[in-house]
Amino acid sequence: MEHSYRLVIACPDQVGIVAKVSAFIAEQGGSLLEANYHTDPVSGQFFMRNEISAQSLSVSFDAFKQQFQVIAEAHQMSWYMRDSNQRRQVVLLASHASHCLADLLHRWRSGDLHCDVPCVISNHENLRSMVEWHDIPFHYVPMAKEPEAKAAGFAEIDRLIQFYQADTIVLARYMQILPPDLCARYPRQVINIHHSFLPSFIGANPYQKAFDRGVKLIGATCHYVTDDLDEGPILEQDVARVGHKHDRDDMVRLGKDVEARVLAQGLRYHLEDRVIVDGNKTVIFD
Amino acid sequence: MEHSYRLVIACPDQVGIVAKVSAFIAEQGGSLLEANYHTDPVSGQFFMRNEISAQSLSVSFDAFKQQFQVIAEAHQMSWYMRDSNQRRQVVLLASHASHCLADLLHRWRSGDLHCDVPCVISNHENLRSMVEWHDIPFHYVPMAKEPEAKAAGFAEIDRLIQFYQADTIVLARYMQILPPDLCARYPRQVINIHHSFLPSFIGANPYQKAFDRGVKLIGATCHYVTDDLDEGPILEQDVARVGHKHDRDDMVRLGKDVEARVLAQGLRYHLEDRVIVDGNKTVIFD
Amino acid sequence: MEHSYRLVIACPDQVGIVAKVSAFIAEQGGSLLEANYHTDPVSGQFFMRNEISAQSLSVSFDAFKQQFQVIAEAHQMSWYMRDSNQRRQVVLLASHASHCLADLLHRWRSGDLHCDVPCVISNHENLRSMVEWHDIPFHYVPMAKEPEAKAAGFAEIDRLIQFYQADTIVLARYMQILPPDLCARYPRQVINIHHSFLPSFIGANPYQKAFDRGVKLIGATCHYVTDDLDEGPILEQDVARVGHKHDRDDMVRLGKDVEARVLAQGLRYHLEDRVIVDGNKTVIFD
Amino acid sequence: MEHSYRLVIACPDQVGIVAKVSAFIAEQGGSLLEANYHTDPVSGQFFMRNEISAQSLSVSFDAFKQQFQVIAEAHQMSWYMRDSNQRRQVVLLASHASHCLADLLHRWRSGDLHCDVPCVISNHENLRSMVEWHDIPFHYVPMAKEPEAKAAGFAEIDRLIQFYQADTIVLARYMQILPPDLCARYPRQVINIHHSFLPSFIGANPYQKAFDRGVKLIGATCHYVTDDLDEGPILEQDVARVGHKHDRDDMVRLGKDVEARVLAQGLRYHLEDRVIVDGNKTVIFD
Repeated sequence: MEHSYRLVIACPDQVGIVAKVSAFIAEQGGSLLEANYHTDPVSGQFFMRNEISAQSLSVSFDAFKQQFQVIAEAHQMSWYMRDSNQRRQVVLLASHASHCLADLLHRWRSGDLHCDVPCVISNHENLRSMVEWHDIPFHYVPMAKEPEAKAAGFAEIDRLIQFYQADTIVLARYMQILPPDLCARYPRQVINIHHSFLPSFIGANPYQKAFDRGVKLIGATCHYVTDDLDEGPILEQDVARVGHKHDRDDMVRLGKDVEARVLAQGLRYHLEDRVIVDGNKTVIFD
Repeated sequence: MEHSYRLVIACPDQVGIVAKVSAFIAEQGGSLLEANYHTDPVSGQFFMRNEISAQSLSVSFDAFKQQFQVIAEAHQMSWYMRDSNQRRQVVLLASHASHCLADLLHRWRSGDLHCDVPCVISNHENLRSMVEWHDIPFHYVPMAKEPEAKAAGFAEIDRLIQFYQADTIVLARYMQILPPDLCARYPRQVINIHHSFLPSFIGANPYQKAFDRGVKLIGATCHYVTDDLDEGPILEQDVARVGHKHDRDDMVRLGKDVEARVLAQGLRYHLEDRVIVDGNKTVIFD
Repeated sequence: MEHSYRLVIACPDQVGIVAKVSAFIAEQGGSLLEANYHTDPVSGQFFMRNEISAQSLSVSFDAFKQQFQVIAEAHQMSWYMRDSNQRRQVVLLASHASHCLADLLHRWRSGDLHCDVPCVISNHENLRSMVEWHDIPFHYVPMAKEPEAKAAGFAEIDRLIQFYQADTIVLARYMQILPPDLCARYPRQVINIHHSFLPSFIGANPYQKAFDRGVKLIGATCHYVTDDLDEGPILEQDVARVGHKHDRDDMVRLGKDVEARVLAQGLRYHLEDRVIVDGNKTVIFD
Repeated sequence: MEHSYRLVIACPDQVGIVAKVSAFIAEQGGSLLEANYHTDPVSGQFFMRNEISAQSLSVSFDAFKQQFQVIAEAHQMSWYMRDSNQRRQVVLLASHASHCLADLLHRWRSGDLHCDVPCVISNHENLRSMVEWHDIPFHYVPMAKEPEAKAAGFAEIDRLIQFYQADTIVLARYMQILPPDLCARYPRQVINIHHSFLPSFIGANPYQKAFDRGVKLIGATCHYVTDDLDEGPILEQDVARVGHKHDRDDMVRLGKDVEARVLAQGLRYHLEDRVIVDGNKTVIFD
């Protein structure tokens, strides 16, 4: 991957906005590796992602940002610029099931997911050895049923997130519902994989529900977590074919592949700054 | 397609049932073109479909059925046998949208759907010319909003179904909800295409709902109609990929292809006697 | 569809090219409905497609083009601008099989394919009635095996293409190989659907070859025709699953759906000026 | 998974063969968990797979086989019966790339692949630690370019296969071509994953070839190895969508997911005795 700066913008749409931003980039010598736009026809919001070759710029990253701030203010932009070399700190949470965690760790180790994984947190001990083999700290944070104990568990998770300065939290089949205040503290930073094709089968036991309904496709959904369970902005979805021969356990097994693939794809979009949240939907510049 | 008899059976599972049925078929000289079984692990029901070469049989169709009745009674079978040359009578109902109707009529005309289409019924006039070009009678049955007028419309539809001796009714994007008594009169004979991936987006305007939710796949579902709206046994489902660039109208357009394909596939299964309804689910021997 | 002008550009890549073009568009008041870029990493060629709201422009279509010519020359651009209201003239060629032709005609009639179809040409008579029902002239141009008769047939086809001022020629399962001089006269204007997943099974009888090889997926490929058989730039491909139960005829039947879908998609890209040919490959701004 | 015996049969087709086999099974008290048949319309060969509940049988595994031999001889059957508890011995060969190996080992460890993995062999050292973490012996067998050294390497591999009494050899992106005598010694036992949609892009560097050709889908093919490179019977294939934005390295990355999935699926069919080789094709009872 070439070293790049990603300039991501949201603002009210107006004539000439692309010209203004791209002229500014060109004035700093910036060569565009990729550029994408979208205007939401309902809200009239304009979204833009520019991937600029880092070595092409004649000014520093900080100088670029400082000067761009003038344009940003003039056009009421929400914006950020990220250095592709500045790796995200991604904390992974898992429970007993290993497939999503193993998949993400393998992609990370192979260099296919550009991020750091400062630690893995789980409410079970069974995945410790796998995580530690990757030289990643493993934190066991048990989750009791009692509200106080549970609150203590989430306080510990929050402490770990802060300690490791995580900017992204991935629920890799973590089977606990995050409390609203934790969700609120990390908006658009917590990514979940739900094991159904949302909005079908919200909540617990989606494969059992899919089996009972007799659907011919099962699915998985990667979404940002909000305090509204399974209702956050969707990053990615996919499906797999099933039939009468498949019982609930078969669906669980077939679903694992879909879940791992969909979570990895959603996380990749997030890590490459390809996602802009637009209300309760996502713009994804893939 | 080779001339065949399709023997379709449902009964409580028991050891030796396959042997008994296949021995009986072999004793009549029957050569199996295809044979499939399934046992429902929950209900313990056994399902079987045998496709027997017609010319291989040493007895007549009627004699075969008469003799098989002895086995059927001994094993509490629900069963039927159908001659593949005995074409089903399929009445198509449509509203304003043409894509599913045009697709089915083209498949029928090309010989890819083995059935007769004795008539098409619509609550709009716009598809008359297309239907009549195929030399198929077109019946305009208007649907007013007033309950009495609507009831009269459905009474006329029922009369036409009986007049044409239809055994299958296909709702090819027919935008009226069938009254419960009509559904009850034709169990497992009315096939609908719903323009969403059920159970997501039950009811009206599924593409608007899909757009509002920001899903990344849209779908279509072919199902038998019961008096529980959009809840009948599912025959087939499929999906198409969408993204932030697609507005509701794009989804409608992309959905047309999925709807036509899924309805044609579901109807094909039905016409080839590949479907057995098992509670609110389907066993499909494809 | 909103009335728009599509400005499509290819030129050597350089810093500031996006800024220059989008500034020019903004200066004319142009509001961007969609904009896409790509730089070929091998050839260093830059490709751009701008879809500009027609009503937003403060100058005429012709004035815009005249003034843009200055920029175009300064940057060695190959370019064109097309009015979305200026419908393409698409001549369809078919042989005996109806599925692709019926599919395209239905999409055209429903308003989903934005083009005119001035005539259909076939070397068989069997599709005349279908075409004429659509009020489209049907020309029967027989194709004998003798070289002279064949040459005369293609001369007649060429004459019809010119007579109807066609700018696009679609081979909708037309089973004759176009002579090289005809291919050369209409570069990037002749679109073919090949009934295999190219480069697998080039040439005749691909389904038989697929059956013989025992592949688990069959496919179809939509490509521009060049004088190198089945080797032109690919617009679209897709596949369908097959297995040991499917004989060659089943593959033919299943393949029809894929062929019709892939051809319609490829043609749509072409009609919306979303395709730029880059050597023997395509850039597709979808 | 319920404990079962799998009776797999190939013989010339004849009337009553299903009845005869299923009657025999029923006479031994055998309850069928699954049963599938297929007749090859070209060769006239009949193929059958019966999965029999082990605990339902009133005779021993050996007694069943001994008695079945009488039927088998009378009908010129090639056949075998396998105990589902008798785990296959699967030796994995890999080179430098880890994705297929990591995927298979994770499935094996999770209990989703029912087999033993007695050892992994590689011509590189880089995957040793991953393999040994799974408590599986890792054998480094270097492959020099010189014919003698290479022959010595394959002799060592053959020795290891025999030492570990492997019955299945999986080439999990093993980048060496097996010598013909080794292929011949293990017919239908060596499974390879080829990183293209065969028969497209046979041989080396398929992703580069796919990039150069401008295909819109890349694929992977799992097949039994014969001494005809990339021409053996195909077990499974799948594809992933690509476009002009993807360079060769992107295709390599996207292809990894397809390769791992396709290889795991092909191996699963093999391990569950769902595959019968029919000439150069496969019958797969899925």
